[in-house]
Amino acid sequence: MALIVQKYGGTSVGSPDRIAAVAEKVAGMRAQGHNIVVVVSAMSGETDRLIKLAKSVSDVPPARELDVLLATGEQTTIALLAMALTRIGCPARSYTGHQVHILTDSAFGKARIQDIDARRVHGDLNQGRVVVVAGFQGVDEEGNITTLGRGGSDTTGVALAAALKADECQIYTDVDGVYTTDPRVVPKAHRLHRITFEEMLEMASLGSKVLQIRSVEFAGKYKVPLRVLSSFVEGPGTLITYEESDMEAPLISGIAFNRDEAKLTVRGVPDKPGIAAQILGEIGKANINVDIIVQNVGADGTTDFTFTVHRGEYQKAMGVLKQVAQALKAREVVGDDKIVKISVVGVGMRSHAGIASQMFKALADEGINIQMISTSEIKISVVVEEKYLELGVRALHSTFGLDRPDEAA
Amino acid sequence: MALIVQKYGGTSVGSPDRIAAVAEKVAGMRAQGHNIVVVVSAMSGETDRLIKLAKSVSDVPPARELDVLLATGEQTTIALLAMALTRIGCPARSYTGHQVHILTDSAFGKARIQDIDARRVHGDLNQGRVVVVAGFQGVDEEGNITTLGRGGSDTTGVALAAALKADECQIYTDVDGVYTTDPRVVPKAHRLHRITFEEMLEMASLGSKVLQIRSVEFAGKYKVPLRVLSSFVEGPGTLITYEESDMEAPLISGIAFNRDEAKLTVRGVPDKPGIAAQILGEIGKANINVDIIVQNVGADGTTDFTFTVHRGEYQKAMGVLKQVAQALKAREVVGDDKIVKISVVGVGMRSHAGIASQMFKALADEGINIQMISTSEIKISVVVEEKYLELGVRALHSTFGLDRPDEAA
Repeated sequence: MALIVQKYGGTSVGSPDRIAAVAEKVAGMRAQGHNIVVVVSAMSGETDRLIKLAKSVSDVPPARELDVLLATGEQTTIALLAMALTRIGCPARSYTGHQVHILTDSAFGKARIQDIDARRVHGDLNQGRVVVVAGFQGVDEEGNITTLGRGGSDTTGVALAAALKADECQIYTDVDGVYTTDPRVVPKAHRLHRITFEEMLEMASLGSKVLQIRSVEFAGKYKVPLRVLSSFVEGPGTLITYEESDMEAPLISGIAFNRDEAKLTVRGVPDKPGIAAQILGEIGKANINVDIIVQNVGADGTTDFTFTVHRGEYQKAMGVLKQVAQALKAREVVGDDKIVKISVVGVGMRSHAGIASQMFKALADEGINIQMISTSEIKISVVVEEKYLELGVRALHSTFGLDRPDEAA
Repeated sequence: MALIVQKYGGTSVGSPDRIAAVAEKVAGMRAQGHNIVVVVSAMSGETDRLIKLAKSVSDVPPARELDVLLATGEQTTIALLAMALTRIGCPARSYTGHQVHILTDSAFGKARIQDIDARRVHGDLNQGRVVVVAGFQGVDEEGNITTLGRGGSDTTGVALAAALKADECQIYTDVDGVYTTDPRVVPKAHRLHRITFEEMLEMASLGSKVLQIRSVEFAGKYKVPLRVLSSFVEGPGTLITYEESDMEAPLISGIAFNRDEAKLTVRGVPDKPGIAAQILGEIGKANINVDIIVQNVGADGTTDFTFTVHRGEYQKAMGVLKQVAQALKAREVVGDDKIVKISVVGVGMRSHAGIASQMFKALADEGINIQMISTSEIKISVVVEEKYLELGVRALHSTFGLDRPDEAA
């Protein structure tokens, strides 16, 4: 008998029929003798409806009140799921974030979980009930309702699993696991049975939007065994593990990519300490998130400084950068918003030399020019021209032996 | 500077525009230097929408979970109103029943308020904020969300006013006060400037659906000055008073009536102790509410026993009664679901004899036969044939001097 936390997203509970289907799934799991805690999001479309309602009374709704409003979304789902469970003879109780004391800081709209009082949940589980908890929401020390920001229900699931010392946290989504890369780009992509926590973190941050990155970080901090699986298709999904030395780990677990990138370069800035900080300081002040940063060794006492941002912030970043460049007496500012980032990710590369050269060769063989390179211990990212995205991803997927064998179609 | 609790019903907050209008009204009151606590219902239609949603997942939703679901209705309104107030520069904070500790018993769907912790509200008022509280909902000792049942927002308003020792509790509705009778039946009906608590109680229970009767009882218990007024039309409304000896009190304050009545009679039951209890016991077990009960002195060792029920429960009551009659060896059971009840209400009748005869004569003059009579200290009710409703009400309204003088049209 295991204690399992299951999290179902907005699509999985998007209609009364789907809620009934989730209830069947949960009841089935309980019938196998497990203790089940279910975390749910708002029904798909509900959060948007509420935001629209808020905008209809105030252009800039106060963050505290917006959280009070948005929290009704998950509250609706927990009640409906508990009803659906009771209907099929599975005793259940719903709880808001407030009720199970999901204590957060007071950063309305993007609060962070600080503590969970698990006693109430254990009490219900001991009485044979399924416990249904509202994701995405909590309460601060003063009793104000807070929300964790979009996707925060994953974090609620993981945090509850950690607080309850659950055997597994299962995140049900509309995909059946983590793939070696996006199957829409590489039809031969296959589902990974397992992936290490660090790889998952890299995959998530690189645009494989299966899990919210904060929930993965949270899971890693408390070593919560995390499984990603589909609400709609039966299957074991992908297990996220914390084994440091997995002998069977492949060299490369997946190819991640990110379409929405843009790069900016300041040419001919003085090659002296503090310049990078000065440039990024202004960008940070403008609330623009920077992704890859590359600075090469300078030649004539000056150097080139390049970084990437989300494509939607390209114009804004360019404006800031031009002012900084003038102050720094840099030669020029150039940019390109038609670029993408492709990354190979795998804990295996730690102990294997030659991954980088293998990657660069595969791209060169396809005539793809690499514009920027950035590496971490378990990933290598390159920035290439937008039109090479599919070609590059497919080449790397094949090179690193990730293509699904034909018979396992 | 006064502390005023204002309650706005579902129609008054039925759309973003109406919420904005309520915000203007509240901000205007605050600008006059008053401390304002606002209690709101769910937006009109919202509760029905939620009940429909519940029915779509479960024919018989568990009461606890239905309350979790329904409580989102008022939570939505409080957030929106606080946003609308903030937008026009009026500092405001919203609170659910849970957050201001509106402690109730655990009778889900029809919980009763036991206590309110007013400290948090006072804290906000001291900081110059308008406090917006969700009506209709509370929390039990175990932290479960409860609701007070339909119309419970009035009770929340009155209970908050009592707990805060407010100077006045203003109930905003879609009518501009309490009338001598329904103006749709008697065009010459006029708004009462004041009405005593006891009269209001009788008017409310007799079908003048201006205020929920529980809220009137609550107001009486704590002597909360209560005012009924319109959200849409300016005016002083009607003040509900607790003055025991109001010299100016008119004999009769109003004519109440109730269309939805049906009567049932058991003929020829043994005239001995315990029979009434036996009949009504079975009716009560079937969850049927009984209104007027009349039993006349018997003749030949038997008597006739008559009572009225809500018309919608007529068939059910008839079924129960036929079984009881058989057991009691009663002669027969007869009934009529084409009857109405008309009542004259007034504290003045306590000290004035002759009101009853004046009433009966007025009806007789119009040729209206009285089928049943029931009296209390401050009201006299008669049951008459349905077709005489309008004629009877108009005759009594005129007889007791309630018709509005022509000049005050």
